[in-house]
Amino acid sequence: MANEQGINVAVVGATGAVGEQILATLEAKDFPISKIKLLSSKRSAGKEMTFKGETVTIEEAVPEAFENVQLALFSAGGGVSKQLAPEAVKRGALVVDNTSAYRMDPEVPLVVPEVNEEDIKKHQGIIANPNCSTIQMVVALEPVRKKLGLNKVIVSTYQAVSGAGLDAVEEMQQQSRDILDGKEVTPKVLPVSGDERHFQIAYNAVPQIDKFEENGYTFEEMKMINETKKIMHDERLQVAATCVRLPVETGHSESVYIETDQPAESVAAMKQLIAEGDGITLQDDPSNQVYPLAVDSVGLPDVFVGRIRQDLDTENGYHLWVVSDNLVKGAAYNSVQIAERALAYGLLK
Amino acid sequence: MANEQGINVAVVGATGAVGEQILATLEAKDFPISKIKLLSSKRSAGKEMTFKGETVTIEEAVPEAFENVQLALFSAGGGVSKQLAPEAVKRGALVVDNTSAYRMDPEVPLVVPEVNEEDIKKHQGIIANPNCSTIQMVVALEPVRKKLGLNKVIVSTYQAVSGAGLDAVEEMQQQSRDILDGKEVTPKVLPVSGDERHFQIAYNAVPQIDKFEENGYTFEEMKMINETKKIMHDERLQVAATCVRLPVETGHSESVYIETDQPAESVAAMKQLIAEGDGITLQDDPSNQVYPLAVDSVGLPDVFVGRIRQDLDTENGYHLWVVSDNLVKGAAYNSVQIAERALAYGLLK
Repeated sequence: MANEQGINVAVVGATGAVGEQILATLEAKDFPISKIKLLSSKRSAGKEMTFKGETVTIEEAVPEAFENVQLALFSAGGGVSKQLAPEAVKRGALVVDNTSAYRMDPEVPLVVPEVNEEDIKKHQGIIANPNCSTIQMVVALEPVRKKLGLNKVIVSTYQAVSGAGLDAVEEMQQQSRDILDGKEVTPKVLPVSGDERHFQIAYNAVPQIDKFEENGYTFEEMKMINETKKIMHDERLQVAATCVRLPVETGHSESVYIETDQPAESVAAMKQLIAEGDGITLQDDPSNQVYPLAVDSVGLPDVFVGRIRQDLDTENGYHLWVVSDNLVKGAAYNSVQIAERALAYGLLK
Repeated sequence: MANEQGINVAVVGATGAVGEQILATLEAKDFPISKIKLLSSKRSAGKEMTFKGETVTIEEAVPEAFENVQLALFSAGGGVSKQLAPEAVKRGALVVDNTSAYRMDPEVPLVVPEVNEEDIKKHQGIIANPNCSTIQMVVALEPVRKKLGLNKVIVSTYQAVSGAGLDAVEEMQQQSRDILDGKEVTPKVLPVSGDERHFQIAYNAVPQIDKFEENGYTFEEMKMINETKKIMHDERLQVAATCVRLPVETGHSESVYIETDQPAESVAAMKQLIAEGDGITLQDDPSNQVYPLAVDSVGLPDVFVGRIRQDLDTENGYHLWVVSDNLVKGAAYNSVQIAERALAYGLLK
């Protein structure tokens, strides 16, 4: 039960790249917390982290750790979520899960607050946070969908290595240095640490994120396709994706082609429509070379949109360039936003 | 007039990145040369280069330098081509021009031999070599167009810095090192050396190649759109492009979506069709993580195609990943191929 100062919050996977961002976001937003629990694997238990100036000792994530927790933010891999999220729910917590474990479960809402915050109310204990590359795209497209209707989406991504974890960032940095020094490199992490073969990421573009499915698409591509339809509540929306990993540390970029039900009155009207969308910052002034860049997005919660232009052959076709920090809006920030809205709906008690 | 040992060849811009590749390609292909002239700006005149083991002194590119030249390969910027290509033609040379100066001139054939080599015969002195990003795409799509018909192309590019010259390569390398060392960087070359603003290319993705046009597209994007239609002789072909510069030294990658007139019998049939295309090497085996990579393409004349898959909503829609060395097939190799075919047609005398 929440006391008058706030609620009891558990962060599972507190020591990871997203976990750290979740703590920073809870602090920055001054989320009303009575007590915070930092949970992790046995290996990190006993270590200390700082939250709001106070030292917090990390505890092992076991079922009992969720006693008296009202909100549990999970970001420790799908396996941990599968095992422990039901335990947290059983003890009365609302779980916001940042893994792919429950995203496509029909009983679990998949939420980007700018698009479908009402879905939060349908939760049965777990709310899923979508994939990073999906989140920024649906935020950018929602004002278009709402006003003009959306038919078709074809996206090619330019994804940062931090989406694959801290090991991937270190591998990219070490490879970059070794190649500049003329040394041989032996890739060990990317494109997918759990897959058979590994390829150079420095000074390269690798068209594989996550493992391949039977149909020739990667799991990352299928996530973008399926999650977009689920979040937008439109099974007939046509979505196609090609997901590519780049030697960029943080900040995913996306080249997005869309077809709307009706065309906008003009490209200027389309820009205006997108600029007014929730969570979006328009950066679109080609004559002054203004467009979104991955390195400029780092640390910011906005989704940046630019290079908006009409297709030269299709009246209702448009091209956009969408950029956001994959660790912030793509993960931690969206999770905390979900928690804030749940709190506002009176769902955290 | 060609003597019995071969023809007299001039290479204009011999000291540039593409010029060097042209000389290497002429050597590797053992192109039948009687005498070679290396031409450049006044600044480099008098320097020496080696061709087929012999020392050649670089001469200044002036109109008189083209006396007795049968073939002139230009790669020294659009301004030089505008000024000197007509002088070479006037003196009886066939010009193969690797700049954008004449590409859209209706009297100048724009040729990728795997696609439209017959156009060589229509030349009136000048044959243009297309833009690098166009060449690899049309090579990959030609077998599809010929067999199934082609309706629509939407491409997002992942382009290497060597396409912007040696200064751009050096800027990327220095920036990469400085950022790893925690130093500030001051971009001066990319995205476009002649444009107002410059942005960090290391660990970034920059959605601008060449300057912006009035319609919001860059000149590079308009080149891909217009050149593809001209090479494929199809003004009704719908082409859209988003061109992006990456921190990759050499090797352009492209995420291409196409719609054909008729669907292929199966994805396997589509792969087979592309594998049999001229100049193409298929690298497509997702279950073994086999797909084209920019770093693997360096120095090779092939266009590598992989990740071929059917769109999940559109029966005649397909996605492909197309990679090639932008300095080889994208520039030097294609120019020398044009010269070879012109020779075979008896057009060099």
